[in-house]
Amino acid sequence: MGNGTNPAFRLLDDLDEHAGARVRRVGGLTLWAETLAFHTSAAREFIDVTDQVAAVVQRSRVSQGWVSVFSKHTTAAVVLNENEPLLLQDMGAMLDRLSTATGIYQHNDLSRRTGEMDPNECANGHAHCQHLLIGGSENIPVADGRLDLGRWQRIFLLELDRPRDRRLVVQVFGA
Amino acid sequence: MGNGTNPAFRLLDDLDEHAGARVRRVGGLTLWAETLAFHTSAAREFIDVTDQVAAVVQRSRVSQGWVSVFSKHTTAAVVLNENEPLLLQDMGAMLDRLSTATGIYQHNDLSRRTGEMDPNECANGHAHCQHLLIGGSENIPVADGRLDLGRWQRIFLLELDRPRDRRLVVQVFGA
Amino acid sequence: MGNGTNPAFRLLDDLDEHAGARVRRVGGLTLWAETLAFHTSAAREFIDVTDQVAAVVQRSRVSQGWVSVFSKHTTAAVVLNENEPLLLQDMGAMLDRLSTATGIYQHNDLSRRTGEMDPNECANGHAHCQHLLIGGSENIPVADGRLDLGRWQRIFLLELDRPRDRRLVVQVFGA
Repeated sequence: MGNGTNPAFRLLDDLDEHAGARVRRVGGLTLWAETLAFHTSAAREFIDVTDQVAAVVQRSRVSQGWVSVFSKHTTAAVVLNENEPLLLQDMGAMLDRLSTATGIYQHNDLSRRTGEMDPNECANGHAHCQHLLIGGSENIPVADGRLDLGRWQRIFLLELDRPRDRRLVVQVFGA
Repeated sequence: MGNGTNPAFRLLDDLDEHAGARVRRVGGLTLWAETLAFHTSAAREFIDVTDQVAAVVQRSRVSQGWVSVFSKHTTAAVVLNENEPLLLQDMGAMLDRLSTATGIYQHNDLSRRTGEMDPNECANGHAHCQHLLIGGSENIPVADGRLDLGRWQRIFLLELDRPRDRRLVVQVFGA
Repeated sequence: MGNGTNPAFRLLDDLDEHAGARVRRVGGLTLWAETLAFHTSAAREFIDVTDQVAAVVQRSRVSQGWVSVFSKHTTAAVVLNENEPLLLQDMGAMLDRLSTATGIYQHNDLSRRTGEMDPNECANGHAHCQHLLIGGSENIPVADGRLDLGRWQRIFLLELDRPRDRRLVVQVFGA
């Protein structure tokens, strides 16, 4: 069977598939996607997800390529930085200075809001603004089947809002 | 004809190609690129481009993979956040606080500038600085042929400078 | 030989491989990775690496796709902006305002730190905080074998800490 211009991918049918991965394999290339769920527990929380992302890379059996970590949220970000507890507090303090939770945000004036609102909507204008500065995804190289991170780099899901259910889409691509 | 180590891609020759997409197909994988043009109309303007990006994904017929949205500009950014009009004003107000248009920027002192300048060069040091904080691209997962965005996530071209012609490179990759 | 579901990649065995590139070729697709080393010379330094990244793209012989530039560090960032010397000073001044090197950071109080520390550890809380705002990677489209950058866009390695050895992982993918 040639590959020509016709799709040659297949769905993986092993245990990983049962764990919820969506998988496409074409030739020696793999596209692997999993959605990871987290429940955050504080108004600001850095959750180190490096080990979970590394496990997705391992399950994908990709040796060289990269992994993308994408937050499906506008008030929860993805961060690459050092996991040093005092530093995490410093970064939080900076975010508070740049866009404080106690500031005035038009977004928090629900009486003036138009359009759809979450029934549990609460004052989170600061969280959206902080998210704008940080961003919601990171792409990390994969080499020799592992995350090609520097010595101090760790991957965080950063809750900016309040305790909520959060999802990260983790996609691995490569050979 | 096997694929082995020789290129097996082809140029797509359907209507989409006529619309300006550059396309490579290899096996069941597609690399699809379009450059979208916009004209902005204000010194700060959030333009919701989600539908245009979704249309590119649909034209590409990629089912699983991702789409990259890249601004070809240093004073126009790409943002993923909620399209709530009051919030967009809040985000603009924060950017003004962090790097105000009325501040002093050496970049705006054209008498001291060296190197090439645009004949229409005007004072936009703040726009470059704001761009540094936001970034110029986003990668978004594609699942089941659609943007795999969270409920509140929308994609914006963010003009930081003045009304200008702007281009976004939208690339879709996947199976 | 069909490609089916078996890996069809091979290691490239030309001079580029000797230069340290890790290469996978599948059909007409190429995954190309190089790690570039730099030594920075100042506490804040914008190093224009556009030509080095363009050279990696050229070596990869990828015609259409993208290149990812990833910093393996938590206090050195990757920036896409204009290479105008006065502007680079403006951006530095803004970063100093948002998270000044002379501010108080708990991370800098080594007596309270837990966990592993670099023997050369010095006060760099501001550099981590600035990195949080800027980010550590950029993805840039490749078209017609070249970086598809806008007229004013240049790629920088941005040292935020002190003179150090720095590494960028540059990955090219495409047809």
